[in-house]
Amino acid sequence: MKALLFDVFGTLVDWRGGVAREAEAVLKPRGYALDWPALGDAWRGEYQGAMEEVRSGRIRFCKLDVLHRRNLDRILPRFGLGALGDEERRALNLAWHRLDAWPDVTAGLARLRRNYLLAPLSNGNVSIMVDLARRNDFPWDAILGAEFAGDYKPKPRVYLSAADAFDLAPQDCLMVAAHSSDLAAAAALGLRTAHIARPNEAGPGRGETAPTVAVDIAANSIEDLAAQLGV
Amino acid sequence: MKALLFDVFGTLVDWRGGVAREAEAVLKPRGYALDWPALGDAWRGEYQGAMEEVRSGRIRFCKLDVLHRRNLDRILPRFGLGALGDEERRALNLAWHRLDAWPDVTAGLARLRRNYLLAPLSNGNVSIMVDLARRNDFPWDAILGAEFAGDYKPKPRVYLSAADAFDLAPQDCLMVAAHSSDLAAAAALGLRTAHIARPNEAGPGRGETAPTVAVDIAANSIEDLAAQLGV
Repeated sequence: MKALLFDVFGTLVDWRGGVAREAEAVLKPRGYALDWPALGDAWRGEYQGAMEEVRSGRIRFCKLDVLHRRNLDRILPRFGLGALGDEERRALNLAWHRLDAWPDVTAGLARLRRNYLLAPLSNGNVSIMVDLARRNDFPWDAILGAEFAGDYKPKPRVYLSAADAFDLAPQDCLMVAAHSSDLAAAAALGLRTAHIARPNEAGPGRGETAPTVAVDIAANSIEDLAAQLGV
Repeated sequence: MKALLFDVFGTLVDWRGGVAREAEAVLKPRGYALDWPALGDAWRGEYQGAMEEVRSGRIRFCKLDVLHRRNLDRILPRFGLGALGDEERRALNLAWHRLDAWPDVTAGLARLRRNYLLAPLSNGNVSIMVDLARRNDFPWDAILGAEFAGDYKPKPRVYLSAADAFDLAPQDCLMVAAHSSDLAAAAALGLRTAHIARPNEAGPGRGETAPTVAVDIAANSIEDLAAQLGV
């Protein structure tokens, strides 16, 4: 195994807490009060459907920032924010660039980097990955994933283009994710798989405590993954 | 200006010295003796023609490692090496992954990273860039360039896809290169430009001592560039 490929939203960073915090930071000073985590949940609720438009070929590939903005525009009226201005919408959309890593991640990646090539294999676009890496000291060798491949996970091209970019066969790569569906798609293509338990990813008790598919490694943190890999 | 985009072969790393050294390391123990720099010069001599096959649309995009291998196969008979085995050819092709930075580069990039996003904008593929970064401590935020764009410089898409990946307008990006032709192509698209003098890039006296086109900055090293940018 020579390269480790990481899902990011939920696996490495806390999207739910971060989006709620950033939404409050943008809207509260402008006099708005609402259930901030509920806004994040509604926003994330539109995520798979938007990507499916691309995966199915109904629309051309566009980066996740663009889909996030469309999804935001769709949900704002549900929160009484249908008249929100463009400036505030742009600021809200940057919430996904300002998420914090789970406490185990930065130290775990620093250990793993000694022995492996590391890259995000996320549906997030390059600029989101770059901003999250600067914020959280993620030591990536390259930014791979959806924007590099021009399609969204779980389409095979996204996983295979990452292995190919590193000149590796799929079996030389380990896909690391907190979501069994992501790992199942990777395993079907020959990648090895590691599950990270994030039991509270989408709120208290709303995350995977264990994989629901066969995996090569099951860990409860990135530091635990490093320990199981002997680094 | 928010991002700096770097040409790599010649601008940041010494391809001529490195290819000669690696070729000797592969072939001398196997009993071969030849003019090692001449092999590198002949190899590099096939470079533009091979990329032009892609740029013109005559062949589909393939990564530079593939073009390098075809070019190697083409030149070996000229050096009496037409019968060289596949294993040796593969080893030779990795020479481009094992080049050393000019002495000013690693320290200069570390300074520039404090104030700017940094990425290579090279015709080299991701795995070459990753190996050169590991070898020389290049602190990239992302690996952009030909493989990301699916075409070769100076095609506009290569420069524009890099600015877009960082969510920047072309004028917010500085293209840094030792080759005036690269800078002319970038400037025509609205990028700002910095020339780095590498007077001995292709051998003694065979490199640009100064730009032959108008540029925003002319520097004699990456450290000089950092100083001129005030970092």
